[in-house]
Amino acid sequence: MKMLINVAESVVADALRGMAAAHPELTVDVENRVVVRRDAPVAGKVGLVSGGGSGHEPLHGGFVGPGMLSAACPGEVFTSPVPDQMVRAAAAVDSGAGVLFIVKNYTGDVLNFDMAAELAEDEGIRIAKVLVDDDVAVTDSLYTAGRRGTGATLFVEKIAGAAAEEGQPLDQVEALARQVNESSRSFGVALSACTTPAKGSPTFDLPAGELELGVGIHGEPGRERRAMMTSREIADFAVNAILDDMSPRNPVLLLVNGMGATPLLELYGFNAEVQRALTERGVAVARTLVGNYVTSLDMAGASVTLCQVDEELLRLYDAPVRTPGLRWGV
Amino acid sequence: MKMLINVAESVVADALRGMAAAHPELTVDVENRVVVRRDAPVAGKVGLVSGGGSGHEPLHGGFVGPGMLSAACPGEVFTSPVPDQMVRAAAAVDSGAGVLFIVKNYTGDVLNFDMAAELAEDEGIRIAKVLVDDDVAVTDSLYTAGRRGTGATLFVEKIAGAAAEEGQPLDQVEALARQVNESSRSFGVALSACTTPAKGSPTFDLPAGELELGVGIHGEPGRERRAMMTSREIADFAVNAILDDMSPRNPVLLLVNGMGATPLLELYGFNAEVQRALTERGVAVARTLVGNYVTSLDMAGASVTLCQVDEELLRLYDAPVRTPGLRWGV
Repeated sequence: MKMLINVAESVVADALRGMAAAHPELTVDVENRVVVRRDAPVAGKVGLVSGGGSGHEPLHGGFVGPGMLSAACPGEVFTSPVPDQMVRAAAAVDSGAGVLFIVKNYTGDVLNFDMAAELAEDEGIRIAKVLVDDDVAVTDSLYTAGRRGTGATLFVEKIAGAAAEEGQPLDQVEALARQVNESSRSFGVALSACTTPAKGSPTFDLPAGELELGVGIHGEPGRERRAMMTSREIADFAVNAILDDMSPRNPVLLLVNGMGATPLLELYGFNAEVQRALTERGVAVARTLVGNYVTSLDMAGASVTLCQVDEELLRLYDAPVRTPGLRWGV
Repeated sequence: MKMLINVAESVVADALRGMAAAHPELTVDVENRVVVRRDAPVAGKVGLVSGGGSGHEPLHGGFVGPGMLSAACPGEVFTSPVPDQMVRAAAAVDSGAGVLFIVKNYTGDVLNFDMAAELAEDEGIRIAKVLVDDDVAVTDSLYTAGRRGTGATLFVEKIAGAAAEEGQPLDQVEALARQVNESSRSFGVALSACTTPAKGSPTFDLPAGELELGVGIHGEPGRERRAMMTSREIADFAVNAILDDMSPRNPVLLLVNGMGATPLLELYGFNAEVQRALTERGVAVARTLVGNYVTSLDMAGASVTLCQVDEELLRLYDAPVRTPGLRWGV
C-alpha cells in the first residue's frame, strides 16, 4: 500500500509540522503533541479539550479555534493520546473557569482522560468530562464497551464550543455537551477497509462486491456484510437504523460524512438519498453538512449523523466558528 | 470497483440534488446543470462563470458564492459541459457589467466556452475569457494542447472573484485573472489511478510500488514513473519542477492539494516537506491551503501549486469568501 509519507514512525509528527506551517493561528507543540488556539487561555472562558487517535482528520486538531475546541491531543494513528498530553492541554487553556474534556467512547481514551482529569485536578484545574457515544450500529465493539463515539463529536465540539465562547460557565457547557450527545445518533458504512501506516496493509478484509453496514471509524466490524447496495438502499438502511433508536420531534442537524476516500461527488449524491429518506420518515432537516469531517484514513464509505436541536442548540450551532476544518460567520 | 452511487448515468444529477439540499444559499438547476449564487445577478457586478467535467469537487460548484464564482457548469464526469449550460449561466449572472469565463485548458472546455461566448454575445452579454494553464508537468497531453489547467484555477477564481465582488470592471477583473494564472505553476503526483463511474475500473494502470510524477487531474500521463518515493523526495521533485519554470521574487500562495483519496494526515505531512523544500530554495510562503480542493475522484496523490503575489493580489486573496468549499471572513 503506497502512502504519501516518509516513514510510519514519523507520520503524526510530520503532520503536526505541516499543520504548524499552514496554520499560524494555532500553536502546535510538535514534541508534546498538543494543538492549542494561539490566544489561549482566554480570560473567563471555559476551555474545551478533546483528542483521540490520529487518522480521523480534520477531527480533532482541525477543530481547534475560536468557537470550537481550545486544544486537541492527537495520539498515534488509531491509538489514544496519553494523559500527559491532556494535562498539558488543560493547563494551556485553563483561565480559571475550568476545562471540559470531550471524550469519544473508546476504552483507551476513556481511561487516559480519566487519569488526566485526576492529574489536572491535582494541579488545581477544574475538570468536567462528557462522553460521546452516538453510534447505534453495535453495543460493545473492538476497543469499546458500550456504543462508539463517531460523527456526533463534531456537533458536541461545535455547540459546546459556541457556549464556551460566549462565556457560559463549566456546568452549563458540560450540560449542553451532554444534551448534544444524547440528542445524536450515527450509522456508518464501509466500501473498503483502511490501511494504517504502521501495518501497511488493510485493517480488515472486505471482499469485492460486499460492504460493511455499521462499521466503526477504525474499521471495527458493524452489524452485517451484504452484497453491494445502491446509494438509495444504503441511505434507507442507515436512516432506518438511526430512527429505530430515536424519534426526533424537532428538526435535526444532518452530517453526511465521508470516511476519507469517497469522492465528494458521491457524498453529495448520497446526501440527496439521505434527505429523501428523512423526508419520507417525516424528519425535518435544519442544517446539512456534507464532507470529510470524521475520517478513517483512506477508507471508502460514509456515515450519517443526526442531532435533534431546539432553538438554543441551533443558535449555538450557527454561531461563528474559525477552525481549519469548520469555519463560518467570521 | 464499489461506489456510493445509484447508477453511473445519474451520478451528476444525484450530486446536484444533494448540493441543492445542503446549500440553500445556492440555486441549483438540476435539469440544466447550472449552479448559481442565489442573489445573482448582483447589480453592477461582473459575473464569474466557470465549469468543467465533474469529478473534481469541490471545484467548480463548491466555489460558487459571494467573493468567488457567480455560477458553475458541471459536465459529465471528466467531460466538458456544453455551451448551452454556459450561456444559461452567463444569462443568470449578468447584471449588464459583463461576464468572465474562467476556462481550464482542455480542448473540449476551450471549444465549448468559445462557442458559448459567441452565443452569449449574440444575446447582448459582454464576455471576457481567461484560460488557466498552470501545470508544468507536460506540454500537450491527453485532452490538451498546451499546458493543462489544474490547481491555479482555485487562485484565479478566488482573486478574480474578490475583485468582481468589490465592483471592479470586466477588463480589470480579466486582467487580474490573467495575472494570477501567469503567476501560478502546479505539479501533481498520483499514487493510484482513479475510477470513473461510467468505466467502473481504473482509468490507467499504475503498478504496485510505482508512482506517476506529473499526473493530470484526469489521470493523464505525467513525466515519468518511478519506484515509490518518500514524501520528502516527492516534495523536492514537485518543488524543483515548479521552480525550474518560475523564479518567485515575491512571496507565494501555496496550495497543497489532495487528489481525493489521500488522507488529510498525509497531506499535512506532505505540506511540511513542501514548506521545507521551498525554504531551502529561498521562497517565502505568504498563505497555505491544505486539503482536497481540485480532486480526481478517488485518486490517491497530491499536487502543489504556487502563485506569486504582490500586495494587491494578497489583499484580494484574503478578502471574504463564502462558498461551500472555501470560506473565510464572513
